Amino acid sequence: MSSVSSAVESFSVVESFRMESFRVERCRRMKRISILGSTGSIGQSALAVVDAHADRLQVVGLAAGENAELLGAQIARYRPRVAAMASGAALDRLKHQGPSDVTFAGTGRDGLVAVASHPDADLVLCASSGTDGLEAVLAAIEHGKTVALANKEVLVMAGGIVSEAARRRGVAILPVDSEHNAIHQCLHARRTSELKRLILTASGGPFRGRSSSELIQVSPDEALKHPTWRMGRKITIDSATLMNKGLEVIEAHWLFGVRADQIDVVIHPQSVVHSMIELVDGSIIAQLGVTDMRLPIQYAFSYPDRWPALLPSLDLARAGTLEFGAPDTDAFPCLRLAYRALEAERSLPVVLNAANEVAVARFLEGRIGFTSIPLVIERTMDAHRAAHVATLAEVRSVNQWAHEHASEAARGVELKV
Amino acid sequence: MSSVSSAVESFSVVESFRMESFRVERCRRMKRISILGSTGSIGQSALAVVDAHADRLQVVGLAAGENAELLGAQIARYRPRVAAMASGAALDRLKHQGPSDVTFAGTGRDGLVAVASHPDADLVLCASSGTDGLEAVLAAIEHGKTVALANKEVLVMAGGIVSEAARRRGVAILPVDSEHNAIHQCLHARRTSELKRLILTASGGPFRGRSSSELIQVSPDEALKHPTWRMGRKITIDSATLMNKGLEVIEAHWLFGVRADQIDVVIHPQSVVHSMIELVDGSIIAQLGVTDMRLPIQYAFSYPDRWPALLPSLDLARAGTLEFGAPDTDAFPCLRLAYRALEAERSLPVVLNAANEVAVARFLEGRIGFTSIPLVIERTMDAHRAAHVATLAEVRSVNQWAHEHASEAARGVELKV
Repeated sequence: MSSVSSAVESFSVVESFRMESFRVERCRRMKRISILGSTGSIGQSALAVVDAHADRLQVVGLAAGENAELLGAQIARYRPRVAAMASGAALDRLKHQGPSDVTFAGTGRDGLVAVASHPDADLVLCASSGTDGLEAVLAAIEHGKTVALANKEVLVMAGGIVSEAARRRGVAILPVDSEHNAIHQCLHARRTSELKRLILTASGGPFRGRSSSELIQVSPDEALKHPTWRMGRKITIDSATLMNKGLEVIEAHWLFGVRADQIDVVIHPQSVVHSMIELVDGSIIAQLGVTDMRLPIQYAFSYPDRWPALLPSLDLARAGTLEFGAPDTDAFPCLRLAYRALEAERSLPVVLNAANEVAVARFLEGRIGFTSIPLVIERTMDAHRAAHVATLAEVRSVNQWAHEHASEAARGVELKV
Repeated sequence: MSSVSSAVESFSVVESFRMESFRVERCRRMKRISILGSTGSIGQSALAVVDAHADRLQVVGLAAGENAELLGAQIARYRPRVAAMASGAALDRLKHQGPSDVTFAGTGRDGLVAVASHPDADLVLCASSGTDGLEAVLAAIEHGKTVALANKEVLVMAGGIVSEAARRRGVAILPVDSEHNAIHQCLHARRTSELKRLILTASGGPFRGRSSSELIQVSPDEALKHPTWRMGRKITIDSATLMNKGLEVIEAHWLFGVRADQIDVVIHPQSVVHSMIELVDGSIIAQLGVTDMRLPIQYAFSYPDRWPALLPSLDLARAGTLEFGAPDTDAFPCLRLAYRALEAERSLPVVLNAANEVAVARFLEGRIGFTSIPLVIERTMDAHRAAHVATLAEVRSVNQWAHEHASEAARGVELKV
């Protein structure tokens, strides 16, 4: 009886005051997030995690590249406070979709920075592609926000600057990349003095087992068919060349404070073991799971708690067989180049990354062959005089030099069509 | 100059006083251990760990069964304070080996209790076989000593009594069994509220893949050939029947406070993944390593620290392939029987264990067939009226009843030779 009567009276002033208190109470427990790159593959997975945990997560900011239509739909659904797009043209298309109470924060890097540093955000997921997220990640750190990092370039280009800022500000950087996320889970509460090495797993990509001579003729379409993960085009090519793993080696160095010689790569085609750590006594701790980015994203959103699974458990008995093997750095020299860049440190990882961006773009355009990708990178690295990079301006300057030099190098190996 | 002169003067009174202080200082940092079952497979591995970490470990007590010759050699080498043997005859043989400053603590369970509760011991490794270690483990707990447990029967028979005593006394029980040791490593500092289930791996034993009809004719010699682990005879047969895994399921229940339906078993013939946990969000954490008992023993001895490896790292790329599959409880009904005993709790696990001891002994004697092992156990369980077991006397009473009933049941299925 009483519950029925209170339902009837629920729109009285008293009741609506009570509901308001409840909302405030609920908001306090909610984690408020901004997503940079919300229309990309990771961004969409992140919003699926929000859907599954709508009682725990609230979207404060969304930033996207050029896909105004999808961002408009996301704004209508998640009602963020602030939004941004890469270009003015894209922002205009977004504004023309109709009225909304979202604040448009601007375009380009400024827009990303505004979304990343919005005062209401507790956590910023950086899933924008390329190097544009760099300033935004630093802005999030400076504003004391937890950073969930799904973008490799940020640490590859400016690992020293970003990790120093996070340390100084006492901000956590939670890796979303499945490998680093796995290592973060394995390290859980362990002392770094107990760590012997990291073991990153690599699917080996679609060309695993092929020799370098067999790789000369492969097309962009073949390279875009990743065996286990569904991802964006750039990262899928990076997986095929093993550069993706090379960038992850550099990223792991900055995230976990380990030297290049403490990071090993093992080929594991099934991508069930997401990565491992070896402790000083020889014990190996591994993290396994289904290959779905919603899981590491949820881990980062829920950390330090864990929330209920939104997917069925991994059935190892059904998975059956897990294979492991050594990477072939003759057929896939990009991995070797990444170690070389990390060992040299300073500006060489910036050059590696920039030259790789150029080479992959040219390959996707059909202008250079698959085996020319490492060639362009190596020639650019060879031509570079390594220097310290202590500021973002220096990083940008090296990045630009490398882009130009790699474009030049790519022209030298263009395919005759 | 000064270092040379101090070396020359090192036998002065002052210097020898200094050395004495250093020895005291060193002893304080040493972990002092007693080993119950020092001449068995686990006991010998434990002493190999002591050899590798002689600066960190000191042997205080040794207890063995009947192997007086080996125990005599161990006493001469490790110079413990106290020693015990299973029988008076064995102890006489030990005493006849020559003079020693060790104290003989007695025989049987009293001897084990005296070694386990010696005031100088910090940690007691219980690696004695069968049920004799029960009182000794309780005595170690009552005396506030850390218990490293390598004996399954202790928790299968008296899990409630032992875990309650450890909880009350604030004493840690560190599992040495590779599976539970793996789970202990995976759980590291995690909240139990985060745990969804345990996944125990099982090699599947030498008869993996065979049907029950193919198992009727197998001989003790065939059953003693374990594919991956080298262990004692009883436990090797338990591995072949999967009863070993069943006992581990019951043990895991008591060690980690999880229900039977939260413990899964997966067949993994390579024994590289030693066991796993699944967390609430679907993430699986696994522990991997080479199959050598010195590693979990060292983990228990060093806990909460980790000491340098005494074996080469596991090379996963060389290991190559790891297989996983579901256990076949039709061909291996012992695993099903163990779940049944655990679900019923109370006295049924005691009956399961006792009946298994009898059945395995009869099988090793060539008196019953391999497939009669689960038959003897099931018939004994069926005949038992489950009761609460709150004291060791009650446990011993049920144990004796089950031994007698199982002996009777075994006679009913004896092979006609």
